[in-house]
Amino acid sequence: MATSAGQLRRTFCRTVALFCATMLVSVTAQAQPDPLPSWTDAAAKRVIVAFVTETTTAGRPGFVPEAERIATFDQDGTLWVEKPMYSQVMYCLDRVPAVVREKPELANVEPFKTVLSGDRAAIAGLPMEDLEKILAATLTGMPVDVFKAEAAKWLDTARDPRWKRPYTDLTYLPMQELMRYLRANGYKTYIVTGGGQDFVRVYAERVYGIPPEQVVGTAGATKYGYDKDGKPFLTKEPKLLLNDNDAGKPEGIHLMIGRRPVAAFGNSTGDRQMLEYTWAGSGPRLAMLVLHDDAVREYAYGPAQGLAESKVGTFTQALYDEAVRSGWTVISMKNDWKRIFSFER
Amino acid sequence: MATSAGQLRRTFCRTVALFCATMLVSVTAQAQPDPLPSWTDAAAKRVIVAFVTETTTAGRPGFVPEAERIATFDQDGTLWVEKPMYSQVMYCLDRVPAVVREKPELANVEPFKTVLSGDRAAIAGLPMEDLEKILAATLTGMPVDVFKAEAAKWLDTARDPRWKRPYTDLTYLPMQELMRYLRANGYKTYIVTGGGQDFVRVYAERVYGIPPEQVVGTAGATKYGYDKDGKPFLTKEPKLLLNDNDAGKPEGIHLMIGRRPVAAFGNSTGDRQMLEYTWAGSGPRLAMLVLHDDAVREYAYGPAQGLAESKVGTFTQALYDEAVRSGWTVISMKNDWKRIFSFER
Repeated sequence: MATSAGQLRRTFCRTVALFCATMLVSVTAQAQPDPLPSWTDAAAKRVIVAFVTETTTAGRPGFVPEAERIATFDQDGTLWVEKPMYSQVMYCLDRVPAVVREKPELANVEPFKTVLSGDRAAIAGLPMEDLEKILAATLTGMPVDVFKAEAAKWLDTARDPRWKRPYTDLTYLPMQELMRYLRANGYKTYIVTGGGQDFVRVYAERVYGIPPEQVVGTAGATKYGYDKDGKPFLTKEPKLLLNDNDAGKPEGIHLMIGRRPVAAFGNSTGDRQMLEYTWAGSGPRLAMLVLHDDAVREYAYGPAQGLAESKVGTFTQALYDEAVRSGWTVISMKNDWKRIFSFER
Repeated sequence: MATSAGQLRRTFCRTVALFCATMLVSVTAQAQPDPLPSWTDAAAKRVIVAFVTETTTAGRPGFVPEAERIATFDQDGTLWVEKPMYSQVMYCLDRVPAVVREKPELANVEPFKTVLSGDRAAIAGLPMEDLEKILAATLTGMPVDVFKAEAAKWLDTARDPRWKRPYTDLTYLPMQELMRYLRANGYKTYIVTGGGQDFVRVYAERVYGIPPEQVVGTAGATKYGYDKDGKPFLTKEPKLLLNDNDAGKPEGIHLMIGRRPVAAFGNSTGDRQMLEYTWAGSGPRLAMLVLHDDAVREYAYGPAQGLAESKVGTFTQALYDEAVRSGWTVISMKNDWKRIFSFER
């Protein structure tokens, strides 16, 4: 993406506007309880508070009408832990034995053979195409209501291998605070995830306070039909409607929301286009990237490992450079977050 | 669709519950101003008020939590006039001369030749495949922001041939009152239309109070790219993602909303599956069909013309029979609506 003089000027004007708003915040915010107590009093937090103050204070030049206050959040790695594997992949891997019981011929076919072997290293090394095969095999033909019930049951019982807790416990407390803070100021918060839309909708309301209609994700077609009593139901089909990654994120936002977000949050190259699209709108914008640089409390990967990694789907050096050049804000888990999980003391 | 004993029992129980709620309404509603002043005091209005009272009064057996109060409305023929042609088709026909100026070779190719002839009867007789060709030719490759601006401009200047008014004046006042009444009682109102999602989103907020993110419609893919200054934008692509008619309506509802509606409103066979899907949920449900039986104030077509018409896309005899059998409510424009348009005295 080229950087024009117009863009640089715009970034400068925004920076000045946000600086003025920061001054305003420091004068007026004293009486309010801190909406972001898990954030250290550093740049990232100040950028957030200045942005919210600027866009929601009537009379400010950057004021945004409430109907247009749309904030979009990537999920895996932005709102909760994405290592060692996306939890939805874990869910599908756990379903493989049941699928093979129904279709025994799969037992000796890759990638099902590897999954059944239980060899964790080999499973973790499966390429994306194999994971997609597993997703298709484990989900196709399921009635959507059965899928919802099964996924909910799995989420109740499955445990993350490191913390031995339900996956839904592994959300980042500072991001939960940020979503609540935005909502308290009239923002509609959306999840825009590369993960499966139906999967995330199962728990998003309970875990994040985000209703199903505000979850945009990778989505397959469904098929309408009738059961033996004539009652209509929908089943999951193998056809992909939206691959909600990379350019698919702004495309999915247009399809499902129909407005350009004012604020967007991500953590990997899959979020790049969503951040660019959000940032390219007029008026104040917030674009933030979560950097995983805390190997002790969570994980360190991407630029935190010497800023040299270039693997697609992670926080690459090129993305880091674009963030700096564009004026986006990088959130350091290590330095910006006092607490990462609500279960920490 | 088969009708089982269970369905009949369920319909009976619902009827009894709504009757009890009606009693409750007649006792408690005296103090409130009438939320539906354009409706005559007949069965359709009573069914609506009883349903809203039952589903929104804490402690009632049919109480529905606010998060689950989803109501879906077809647009063409349900919320506004659909004759002599869908207004979006009118919009595309009006764009044909500009398209032909850019691609002169189309001037002698059907269906463009017929459109350019200005022969209204011939244009009105074009089959759906020809209209689809026109839609694809007139919209493909347009940046979505250009489309929005052009469609808004067209809506400002175009006039309906019968009333000589902007199309957006031709919404049904009783349905506007119904949407406001539902929203005042915690319902989220959605448009679920066979029309183009991007087109309806241009005016839905202003005309119906429905924001873009609550408009589900027939949707094409978009493509993310950058302009010469590196600024990202989306263009319309010829690929169809969702044909939001017939079975596509519940499939679209699942994709875009992720919850089964509690109330649904339509006027043609294209709405049948949405009504069935809504009705098949547990607890109180509202399923209503607008019958065009007022040739003087609007139009009369479908079953109003002797209940014999069977053309797809209209209110057929089979749909009428299913409505009666299922316990859905048919709204007679002639008898249930005191006023049809807000511009009437």
